[in-house]
Amino acid sequence: MSPALRCHRCGERYEDATRVRCGCGEPLWFETDAAAFTWADRRSHEGMWRYEPLLPIDGPDGLAWAAGGTPLVRSEGLDDAAGCRVCVKDEGEHPTGAYKDRGSAAAVPHATAAGDGAVGTVSYGNMAMSTAAHAASLGRECVVLVPDDISPVRLELIDQYGPTIVRVDGDYGALYGDALELSAALPVRFLVSDDPARISGYKTALFEICEAFAPDAPDALALPTSSGGFASGLWRGIRDLEAAGLLDDPPRLYLVQTAASDPITRAFDAGAVDPTPLSPEETGETIAHSIGNPDPPSGGRALAAVRDTGGAVVSVTDDEIRAAQRRFAVDGGFCVEPASAASLAGVARLSERGEVDDDDAVVLLPTGTGFKELGAGDASVATERTSRAALPERLASLLGVS
Amino acid sequence: MSPALRCHRCGERYEDATRVRCGCGEPLWFETDAAAFTWADRRSHEGMWRYEPLLPIDGPDGLAWAAGGTPLVRSEGLDDAAGCRVCVKDEGEHPTGAYKDRGSAAAVPHATAAGDGAVGTVSYGNMAMSTAAHAASLGRECVVLVPDDISPVRLELIDQYGPTIVRVDGDYGALYGDALELSAALPVRFLVSDDPARISGYKTALFEICEAFAPDAPDALALPTSSGGFASGLWRGIRDLEAAGLLDDPPRLYLVQTAASDPITRAFDAGAVDPTPLSPEETGETIAHSIGNPDPPSGGRALAAVRDTGGAVVSVTDDEIRAAQRRFAVDGGFCVEPASAASLAGVARLSERGEVDDDDAVVLLPTGTGFKELGAGDASVATERTSRAALPERLASLLGVS
Repeated sequence: MSPALRCHRCGERYEDATRVRCGCGEPLWFETDAAAFTWADRRSHEGMWRYEPLLPIDGPDGLAWAAGGTPLVRSEGLDDAAGCRVCVKDEGEHPTGAYKDRGSAAAVPHATAAGDGAVGTVSYGNMAMSTAAHAASLGRECVVLVPDDISPVRLELIDQYGPTIVRVDGDYGALYGDALELSAALPVRFLVSDDPARISGYKTALFEICEAFAPDAPDALALPTSSGGFASGLWRGIRDLEAAGLLDDPPRLYLVQTAASDPITRAFDAGAVDPTPLSPEETGETIAHSIGNPDPPSGGRALAAVRDTGGAVVSVTDDEIRAAQRRFAVDGGFCVEPASAASLAGVARLSERGEVDDDDAVVLLPTGTGFKELGAGDASVATERTSRAALPERLASLLGVS
Repeated sequence: MSPALRCHRCGERYEDATRVRCGCGEPLWFETDAAAFTWADRRSHEGMWRYEPLLPIDGPDGLAWAAGGTPLVRSEGLDDAAGCRVCVKDEGEHPTGAYKDRGSAAAVPHATAAGDGAVGTVSYGNMAMSTAAHAASLGRECVVLVPDDISPVRLELIDQYGPTIVRVDGDYGALYGDALELSAALPVRFLVSDDPARISGYKTALFEICEAFAPDAPDALALPTSSGGFASGLWRGIRDLEAAGLLDDPPRLYLVQTAASDPITRAFDAGAVDPTPLSPEETGETIAHSIGNPDPPSGGRALAAVRDTGGAVVSVTDDEIRAAQRRFAVDGGFCVEPASAASLAGVARLSERGEVDDDDAVVLLPTGTGFKELGAGDASVATERTSRAALPERLASLLGVS
């Protein structure tokens, strides 16, 4: 039985475990009964499920068991570039190569336990792959909504797991809301970027870091941010450990965005509570394709996380990202995707600004492996295609509903 | 201080920790003082270094800390394809995307502790990447010997870590022996595929599997085999645990080769002690580019491992490999490289032959991630080029030796 859902902003509480957003407009997350938790309560399992007492589902299934338990290592070679004492939490070392697997590991079993319908998501990248892989491991149908102009390379990465891929012509950003509506109307559960169960899964990255440092704590964490889901999960994790009395001095959260599309940075700099969605004219191309959501559904919560922990949000350019990506490899031995390299680029900026000191212990969280970007692939991929307007009907047809 | 080196075949013992091969011709491995080891002696570290008491070096450095601790999961979706009860040990979830990191994690620090010279290897694939990454994390120069006709894609994968890449025109297979000679003559340590320290690192995969199953044990392990190094490491691990009284019923070792180049399979079928090197006419192209060494330097030891554990060696075709790769993804949610998929294809064959039963618990070891094969990359890479004959002089020049 799922715990209740709670709003971080207005405090409203919901018993319906299928809700995603509060009536006030903010995203919801699962309550945790963390007060009595101690490190000794962790299960003996190696991955993220060692923290099962703090997660909203029991005993997952399939690929979920492989998520989490990523390496956390001191990476002195990167100290120079970062201007501090660097540790790396290599989230790319996951079954589908990204931290998204922590979210899918909780959300896909959570959805499949609740009903027999399909699962799905709205993504052309890591979240699409992750959701499809977890669904595949459970023999459950998966529907992925992608932009009509998705590249063949992206299609190949997603298609390997066998989901139904639906190309949607129209405003791709609006599909977040569409997906929630479709989940209510049809036998499918779209697991959006800040689905509460995903957020619960993301907490486990924070637990692993803090357990490794205990009884100390890192001074800061640095991660790339797009929709605000991972930052929300790390903050939820911090609050759980504070409730348990296991984290007296939480790490500062530093979020890094791509200068090409950085609504959260702008809101932080302006002292705003919520990001203002960026218009197409206000966004540009970036090599950090995994980040840059112009209208981040958990943007307000990510800002709250930053302010609560005394952190900051910064933007970095593609040049800084490329340089950081090379430093990750040449000085650290890590192959990380461009968005992930932004973490290092961001910390370098913060060091220049004097917000990060030489002797600060900072954990960089490269969110995805760079291997997906290297090598060559020219496979043809079969897809479904539809317009946004016809999506409900097409989906109903695909799902065998009249 | 390193333990002594021992020959698996003639029993000869050497104190010189830089030797690689026995006077009898067989590869050496480090002795282990395992008799008193219990699972309680494992360190609290998360990765392979939890087994430090059984490894030939103390406290590694750099990227080495990130190796090991890969997920081991029950993967029921693959039972059908395999014809048994499948567990997957996902060795692709490593810093450089392959099990090679276990070997480099031991061998690179071992070499750097012994002297100030460069490290290197002979490889155009996963071992090249791994060695380069580990060296990069220690700020140590790395030299990689590659075939003159190496593809741009392979170059990109290796070059990202910043090693010196040397294209060698001539008999690439002969570079194994050349590398050992060069290591003796120049300030460089080439860490070949069955370097004893690499073999020690590979043991840890077996330790992790057996500790997870303890007090039971899997019925069998299945892995792709090329040079015979990984199989040697798993066998060394089995023997350590037997000596410690922790493994009464060791798993059978099933090695899988590509039908295009399968000297070990042929030797197994013929009841031969050693593989006969294959001529170019006897080998063909394969999608499983990570395997297919026509003259495996640890082939004899791999055969001994198979016979000692009651296992077998089988070959699979490219069609079987492709089908298995798709099953890994669509039924298991795993993206594995073609050579890795051979593990599943091999077990399917063995099930058909009746050597593997429905209720056998078999651990598949996909050795490398499939992400390196997907996506696109068109970078240009700067390289050094030389003939084999001129290699010693060129290398001396590159290393600043007169």
